[in-house]
Amino acid sequence: MKHVKRAGFMSGIVTLTTDFGTADGYAGAMKGVILAAFPIARIVDLAHELAPGDVAAASESLARAAPFFPPRTVHVAVVDPGVGTARRGLALSLGEQFYVGPDNGIFTGVLELGGPAAARALENWGLWRASVSPVFHGRDIFAPVAAHLAGGGEFRDVGPVVAVDGLARLPLPVASGDATELRGEVVHVDRFGNLVTNLRADEGSAAASVEIAGQVLALSRTYGDVAPGALVAVVGSSGRIEVAQNGGSAAAHLEGGRGLVVILRAPRESA
Amino acid sequence: MKHVKRAGFMSGIVTLTTDFGTADGYAGAMKGVILAAFPIARIVDLAHELAPGDVAAASESLARAAPFFPPRTVHVAVVDPGVGTARRGLALSLGEQFYVGPDNGIFTGVLELGGPAAARALENWGLWRASVSPVFHGRDIFAPVAAHLAGGGEFRDVGPVVAVDGLARLPLPVASGDATELRGEVVHVDRFGNLVTNLRADEGSAAASVEIAGQVLALSRTYGDVAPGALVAVVGSSGRIEVAQNGGSAAAHLEGGRGLVVILRAPRESA
Amino acid sequence: MKHVKRAGFMSGIVTLTTDFGTADGYAGAMKGVILAAFPIARIVDLAHELAPGDVAAASESLARAAPFFPPRTVHVAVVDPGVGTARRGLALSLGEQFYVGPDNGIFTGVLELGGPAAARALENWGLWRASVSPVFHGRDIFAPVAAHLAGGGEFRDVGPVVAVDGLARLPLPVASGDATELRGEVVHVDRFGNLVTNLRADEGSAAASVEIAGQVLALSRTYGDVAPGALVAVVGSSGRIEVAQNGGSAAAHLEGGRGLVVILRAPRESA
Repeated sequence: MKHVKRAGFMSGIVTLTTDFGTADGYAGAMKGVILAAFPIARIVDLAHELAPGDVAAASESLARAAPFFPPRTVHVAVVDPGVGTARRGLALSLGEQFYVGPDNGIFTGVLELGGPAAARALENWGLWRASVSPVFHGRDIFAPVAAHLAGGGEFRDVGPVVAVDGLARLPLPVASGDATELRGEVVHVDRFGNLVTNLRADEGSAAASVEIAGQVLALSRTYGDVAPGALVAVVGSSGRIEVAQNGGSAAAHLEGGRGLVVILRAPRESA
Repeated sequence: MKHVKRAGFMSGIVTLTTDFGTADGYAGAMKGVILAAFPIARIVDLAHELAPGDVAAASESLARAAPFFPPRTVHVAVVDPGVGTARRGLALSLGEQFYVGPDNGIFTGVLELGGPAAARALENWGLWRASVSPVFHGRDIFAPVAAHLAGGGEFRDVGPVVAVDGLARLPLPVASGDATELRGEVVHVDRFGNLVTNLRADEGSAAASVEIAGQVLALSRTYGDVAPGALVAVVGSSGRIEVAQNGGSAAAHLEGGRGLVVILRAPRESA
Repeated sequence: MKHVKRAGFMSGIVTLTTDFGTADGYAGAMKGVILAAFPIARIVDLAHELAPGDVAAASESLARAAPFFPPRTVHVAVVDPGVGTARRGLALSLGEQFYVGPDNGIFTGVLELGGPAAARALENWGLWRASVSPVFHGRDIFAPVAAHLAGGGEFRDVGPVVAVDGLARLPLPVASGDATELRGEVVHVDRFGNLVTNLRADEGSAAASVEIAGQVLALSRTYGDVAPGALVAVVGSSGRIEVAQNGGSAAAHLEGGRGLVVILRAPRESA
């Protein structure tokens, strides 16, 4: 048995992404379990205000934030309507970071970002709390496993290897078309009412146009490039086309959300 | 006078439970005061989104999270509609942790959990901020007292002993009946619309039934054990019966909340 | 070139004040960038639930919390509807702390509090992320600059000096009148529905009266000094007159908010 040098391998950072809100004490209980098991953990709240059960929003949120964290960060994600059923618990090693949560598609977004991945099913109950509630794996399984990993514990200790190809994935809508005209849709509505699409674009494609709900918008650089109240299409901070309203909510203005069709057109050749 | 070794006696962790929200800067001011007094404090947010003045929800929330934290954690709880009136400020030593806040019943839940308890009234103004606003004891009294305790300061320094029996307690509804039929009520509605009752049950009692709003539900193991949209009764993560809707809000579905009657029945003998 | 001793000059604390909410991962991405650049940073959430684009509320919130933090704390504030336009990015040295964010008036409140101030425009892109999104300077410019300052990096490194007198300031409403009758207005509505005014008062002025929406209120010490449901005027925790409803929301009760006129009168001489 090898001696494991742990100090160099941990960031001590554990992030939390849940739909628990904060008022009920569920997220707080997870924090307590992590700190009791690994007292020098540094807990970072990513999101607790996700809509209840919205696994797609959790996947999107996690993928926007997690990649920026330092190596060996452990990201715990618990939007888990199937808690206590046959769905597996997972730990992922992805890029240089760890992810812990249910195998229900919540890691679709970070898996899409790529990087070397390995997955294990959480089956080593020796790492769990002594008593596991069938309705709160966040507290009784995911939190103590995260503390194990954050403290430099071995990845292989959490349970047996499972195939990354076999993990649950959300059915991401795929853009269709060609370089001239690409047809996609809104995949996320953010707090500002900005409509984030699945259409990727380089900032260099500034002469392109975006059609949404019958309106055609030139691709702009930032929100303030159009008049207050006007719709604007930009390359968002995750590299995908988004439609916003300068000083307002595009979602409210267009009365649209996820699934709304958006078309990206390359600039026409001059006649 | 004894020499006090402090280093071994502190966790450095201070948790916050308030109804301040975050947007107004009140919770932020408390964090600043704590960090200015005890720069290596590790502040952990438990809840800031409690309904304004809802002491019962704060008591419930705190009791769900606080017990999981490591020894010497200091929990500050400020839902304090009577701030600046004759109600006392308190520090509790309970189990191996500390609690700081108003003597208005906010600690009912953690006191119910039991353990060796001692209480002191906050009367040593030498520990407070030099100027105390009558409308913000969270910032000017509770935060600096919490910093004192988190840094390993003596419990006895905060003020004189008061009787634990004399502390304000919320009038918790009591379940009535016997092992065959126990009548209780909903005491908390969580973010998912789950209806948490005051009926305790072992998971072993899986053959029992739960009646709520005229419907009789078999006691299930987890939410996903019933069809989507169906009501389900489970033993919740705090050991009490709760009624949920799989994929929905039981509170919205039943148009009910705190005070709704719930009856737990043991399985009938077969005829 | 002087040798800089850094260890003694940093608090390691970085606070965040944004209108990002938490669910979309924007605030989380900022945290990741800060921790990747300065792994021992201690990140403290001040506010993420500010109303989208409400720079005035952000200024108010920051001014209520920031001054209480220890020296060398770095406060990052991002309510930034003009992101990517010609508005400058700023770093301020104010009192013994640092502030980083857009030059759009968000620092009006802390600048009003006074203290020695110096400002620099963020123009040293060597400190930024390699690729800067025109719609997310919080992640790509403000977060890494904050990490630089929190880690003890030189203030002068962020960019050239700009005149503090030339910084954007919100047009704060000014109270008018004299010691006998001072006319001001509501400048902030907090989560409790308390109406915070721009009228400063000493607590000693307890015999004064406050007129709002046709009602005259004696200046009280705290909320509970009047009957439940009654309106009450107190000196708030930031030293300004506020009007509250004991156990309710004054804003809802009076159907009023920012801009509502409030008059503070000194006690009349007895006849």
